[in-house]
Amino acid sequence: MNGPRIELISSGSELLNGGTINRHAQALGAALDAEGYTLSRDTTIGDQAEEIRDALSEALDRAEVVVFSGGLGPTGDDLTRGVVAEMLGCGVVMHEPSRLRIVERYRFRRKPLNNLVEQHALVVEQAEVLDNAAGLAPGELLRIGGAVLFLLPGPPSEFQAILTDHVMPFLRKRWPSSPVRTIKFHVAGLGESDLLARMHEAKFPFEEINPSFRASPGQVLLTLTHPDEARLTHAGELVQSLLTVHELVALSHDSVASVVADLLTGSGQTLAVAESCTGGGLGEQLTALPGSSRFFVGGVIAYANAVKESLLDVPAELLADQGAVSGPVAAAMAVGVRTRLGADWGVSITGVAGPGGGTDDKPVGLVYIGVAGPEGSAVREIRFGGSRSSVRNFAMRAALNLLREHLVG
Amino acid sequence: MNGPRIELISSGSELLNGGTINRHAQALGAALDAEGYTLSRDTTIGDQAEEIRDALSEALDRAEVVVFSGGLGPTGDDLTRGVVAEMLGCGVVMHEPSRLRIVERYRFRRKPLNNLVEQHALVVEQAEVLDNAAGLAPGELLRIGGAVLFLLPGPPSEFQAILTDHVMPFLRKRWPSSPVRTIKFHVAGLGESDLLARMHEAKFPFEEINPSFRASPGQVLLTLTHPDEARLTHAGELVQSLLTVHELVALSHDSVASVVADLLTGSGQTLAVAESCTGGGLGEQLTALPGSSRFFVGGVIAYANAVKESLLDVPAELLADQGAVSGPVAAAMAVGVRTRLGADWGVSITGVAGPGGGTDDKPVGLVYIGVAGPEGSAVREIRFGGSRSSVRNFAMRAALNLLREHLVG
Repeated sequence: MNGPRIELISSGSELLNGGTINRHAQALGAALDAEGYTLSRDTTIGDQAEEIRDALSEALDRAEVVVFSGGLGPTGDDLTRGVVAEMLGCGVVMHEPSRLRIVERYRFRRKPLNNLVEQHALVVEQAEVLDNAAGLAPGELLRIGGAVLFLLPGPPSEFQAILTDHVMPFLRKRWPSSPVRTIKFHVAGLGESDLLARMHEAKFPFEEINPSFRASPGQVLLTLTHPDEARLTHAGELVQSLLTVHELVALSHDSVASVVADLLTGSGQTLAVAESCTGGGLGEQLTALPGSSRFFVGGVIAYANAVKESLLDVPAELLADQGAVSGPVAAAMAVGVRTRLGADWGVSITGVAGPGGGTDDKPVGLVYIGVAGPEGSAVREIRFGGSRSSVRNFAMRAALNLLREHLVG
Repeated sequence: MNGPRIELISSGSELLNGGTINRHAQALGAALDAEGYTLSRDTTIGDQAEEIRDALSEALDRAEVVVFSGGLGPTGDDLTRGVVAEMLGCGVVMHEPSRLRIVERYRFRRKPLNNLVEQHALVVEQAEVLDNAAGLAPGELLRIGGAVLFLLPGPPSEFQAILTDHVMPFLRKRWPSSPVRTIKFHVAGLGESDLLARMHEAKFPFEEINPSFRASPGQVLLTLTHPDEARLTHAGELVQSLLTVHELVALSHDSVASVVADLLTGSGQTLAVAESCTGGGLGEQLTALPGSSRFFVGGVIAYANAVKESLLDVPAELLADQGAVSGPVAAAMAVGVRTRLGADWGVSITGVAGPGGGTDDKPVGLVYIGVAGPEGSAVREIRFGGSRSSVRNFAMRAALNLLREHLVG
């Protein structure tokens, strides 16, 4: 890689006390990765001036580009500008065009504007000011030693706006890059070690392409990266030949949900979901994809058994005989939602997500997933380990994969 | 704070290329915060030996405790043990009890065990080995200079298991702490600056308690922290007196969802949801809470208009006259789901989440939320800015808040 070393620093005590998940690394990392740049380090620190100063000067020593987020608001824990100005030996000044933008933006507001709001427009004296299309505080570009420092606001939509409008264009101009080529394999039902063993056996060119593995419950993400398309394709075909249709869940897609979405949209078919222990999470994942209305009809969150009967037509006797967490009920839910909502496909999930509710017979982690389509229905029993949230995530992924198998099969 | 300085380092290239969100900082931060410890810095680096070595030695210079996660698997990008052994000038050895545990765990597996799996049991020679209740690779405790280094596996459930079983008990024994007291205010419909201005006006004791603010779309999280309970309570009462019931969404709860859950469970009432543009996300949030079956009945994901008619009894004429994104349809959805599912309360969301689908009349970001209860129904029109995901998150929060207002009012 000949690109610049790029580092990210996020400041905010709530990012370190469990209050908030820091999503800036993902936003910046994905934007850089898509254009062949690499994020080398991500550092998160609290709201203390000393922590900010230390992290900033260390990063500016190592990197050509430092993106710093947070601490640009008007409250007492917003210290970024002051620390940077002190490092540069300059002042903090009011940026009049930004202040006027704020006043204009609040023109129609009923309550009188307090002057704290205007403090969003304060900037480091030496900064090149970057307009913020999504909020109040502008971004700032500073040159310190040989490095470039971007100051961005903490709220994700504002961070993203200035990243798109200013940071990426700056990088493209200063360090034109040729996109690095990547193939991603989402693999299910096969451990990291098994996959690696198969690759060794098939004489995968490890000396040339260093594969990256990421294991998560029930799934491994394998990424191959190489600048030469022909070599990468060759290595990718080798890996693909080692995997069955059941194991290779998604190829160069972001997720199984997007694979399923493409398969359904491509064939003009529709889908409905019936969810018990996942409570709507499967629908949420599918509708997170823009354009999901082309294939997603809707669903039923059948948390209580009465809802399984009334909205999915699961027979009361079946629920009494087999229990809500059972293969026959999963099948009936998939068939029911498909019929009721008039979709080509129905998918269902019923299980014991925990932490309570498990029995010897039906322990926490036991999940049944069902699929119903034009040619009938199928169910799969799966046992997962881990927390309530792991079991639910795992169940959704397995359900999407079961549907995917039927769509391609 | 007299506690130890604690830092976290996570290694994994997929954490820096947008592939995966790093959730370790949240898990560790929350566990530490609950017992009065502070996470001072979180660093994420790629899978390169040099990056790992630099980040580790810097952190060990600054901190008393360093928790390092990732890179303990059997594949070529798992370099952690080797780097640490080199720093200590010792070797990497097979930990026989861990190896036997792995062999035992795979005893009933159909495929033969490959010897890469056993490499999960490799440890740094000088390490105290920490058993992993959730996976294959054990944790390790090492003493380097004056600092303690924990090596933990990257998968979240394994990280959490060793954190709970070994890291927290170690901290408690070595640095007994008295919990720091905290009050959190989730505030809606009021900017950070407005809230701060009110606090200034009311003479909030800023010299004594430094409040932390976290703004996100439509909501501000204000955290007050002080070791003395009486002073904290006094300051908390002052803030509370500045907020209306509409503005103070949740007090010392994790989220509005948990406030609503407590209110419903406490009064023995039930809830059903009808979701269009959020696709099941509201149900997902509510059922993420353990014990949600005590109040949550289920719901209908009415993405297509036909589902709004067939499962929620929204009149076809209403949909034709007003459009699916309208106040009357939101009200009909809330009433419909309440009636169909036999719940005490029904909540609905219908809107234009974007990026497509907006018109001049009904732009992206326009959302109607409805609530139906024993005494009738109400709707609220809201306009949000931002991405599809922001609009959806904002809509769910607003819907929960509308319900909360009706539950307390």
